[in-house]
Amino acid sequence: MVRGGGTPAVRSIADNAQLALLLEVSSTPKPGNVDREHEYADLRFEHFVTGAVGAREGLERAAEGGPVGAAFERAIAGMSRQSGGNTQFGAILLLTPLVVAAARTRAETGARTVTPEAAGEVVSETTVDDAVGFYRAFEHVSVAVDEPPEELAAPDVRRGAAAEPALREAGLTLEDVMADSAEIDGLAAEFVGGFERTFETARRIRDRDGPVTDRAARVFLELLAEEIDTFVVTQHDRETAREVKRRAAAALDGEETPEDLAAEFVDRGINPGTTADLIAGGFFVALERGLEV
Amino acid sequence: MVRGGGTPAVRSIADNAQLALLLEVSSTPKPGNVDREHEYADLRFEHFVTGAVGAREGLERAAEGGPVGAAFERAIAGMSRQSGGNTQFGAILLLTPLVVAAARTRAETGARTVTPEAAGEVVSETTVDDAVGFYRAFEHVSVAVDEPPEELAAPDVRRGAAAEPALREAGLTLEDVMADSAEIDGLAAEFVGGFERTFETARRIRDRDGPVTDRAARVFLELLAEEIDTFVVTQHDRETAREVKRRAAAALDGEETPEDLAAEFVDRGINPGTTADLIAGGFFVALERGLEV
Repeated sequence: MVRGGGTPAVRSIADNAQLALLLEVSSTPKPGNVDREHEYADLRFEHFVTGAVGAREGLERAAEGGPVGAAFERAIAGMSRQSGGNTQFGAILLLTPLVVAAARTRAETGARTVTPEAAGEVVSETTVDDAVGFYRAFEHVSVAVDEPPEELAAPDVRRGAAAEPALREAGLTLEDVMADSAEIDGLAAEFVGGFERTFETARRIRDRDGPVTDRAARVFLELLAEEIDTFVVTQHDRETAREVKRRAAAALDGEETPEDLAAEFVDRGINPGTTADLIAGGFFVALERGLEV
Repeated sequence: MVRGGGTPAVRSIADNAQLALLLEVSSTPKPGNVDREHEYADLRFEHFVTGAVGAREGLERAAEGGPVGAAFERAIAGMSRQSGGNTQFGAILLLTPLVVAAARTRAETGARTVTPEAAGEVVSETTVDDAVGFYRAFEHVSVAVDEPPEELAAPDVRRGAAAEPALREAGLTLEDVMADSAEIDGLAAEFVGGFERTFETARRIRDRDGPVTDRAARVFLELLAEEIDTFVVTQHDRETAREVKRRAAAALDGEETPEDLAAEFVDRGINPGTTADLIAGGFFVALERGLEV
């Protein structure tokens, strides 16, 4: 069809980041997570949709090139403007450096893409201010976190903005803070480890056929079967996380249905949030690399 | 919880317009429409989500005060960047003057609201340029429309941008064009009739209890039982539209379940789109008037 006047209707980088959040929660079934067919009584689909709209302004800041910490804090402040509580803290943490990387690549080369190298560079250039922004974000919403192990150098995230003097005194950048948790937190590991699983997720979503939300639900199960979800470790314990991994593998093998698994995990309040975050990050990368919806 | 630095995280007018599109399609069951639990093989939930993201830039133009025609065309161009086809043409047509009205009210009085009076004023001030923008929007996406009745003064919308000379020669504004179709098109009637059903929809969604998407699904049935859906007349015929009205009333009376009705209507390809548009418009008004999600 002939297009009317005006610029071509290409989605912006911020559009794709927001769309990634929406497609993640639209993908069903993702056992244990809120999706369009599964909810908890007090954490519902509409809260995630509203979170994705609220995050917009922060995502736009990231798409203007950052800085990572301020853009992230802004996105979390906006995301938290709904009554469900924490909906997309981890997903936005993963998206922010990817969005900044896409924006920089576009500004520098004109190309519309995002690469692990560019994302890694954004992380390695994070500052103490970015770390402060990250800590401040915890003031906007209640995030499930464990007691920090003794050996961590970074302040307890639950201190929020009050951690600023300690961060400044120790000269800790956001990369330092994430590196500190990489062994116990799958998202932090991704952040400082070149976003390997995120890009692999993007590749799988792009390469397959069928509705994109069906593809993502399948990839979710695969990711869950490949590594334990550290959010489940935090919420429950390592044994539960290992069971989740085993059960996801069983569902992939056809020994039980993903639908039954979803019903059971929601019932037991088992919510593999880190794996869902990887789906959101993977969607963003896939969209930037040309995934059609 | 203590809020961190930065401006308070209040949703913008464009945020609420976008959220209205997303909450509409999230509300289920809305018999015959795509919602988060019902899809057609080639028109799926993900297309509506992507349409709502694509519409963003046009909605932002409307939130900057318009003009209505250009903002609408932009939103439709963006909405159409997905493979499902027409997802939210009518909803965006209804939203655009409401968003412009909210923006003007805010600029003039500082108040955050939208009134039927302000929306009516926006419509009465539309120009020939706005009419041209409306016709151009039909170039971006295929919209189901009937053969125009002989007596219509306005050009056939299917002429798209080619209708411009005729519109200019006759001096037809967007209000004139809509008035011309008000008798056969429920959305045009709303546009030139003070948005009565839209504001009534907003009132009902706001006044009730429970998850907002459950409230909206109930209000959808009520609207469907109150007046025939003109999109069903266009898609099928008047007899089918009358049946839909009757069946919606029966579902409200408990004679059949909304879920069964949804399954049957999707099966028969009966898609009461105009009533869904009223839900989107109603959500926007309700959000601007303080609806909490």
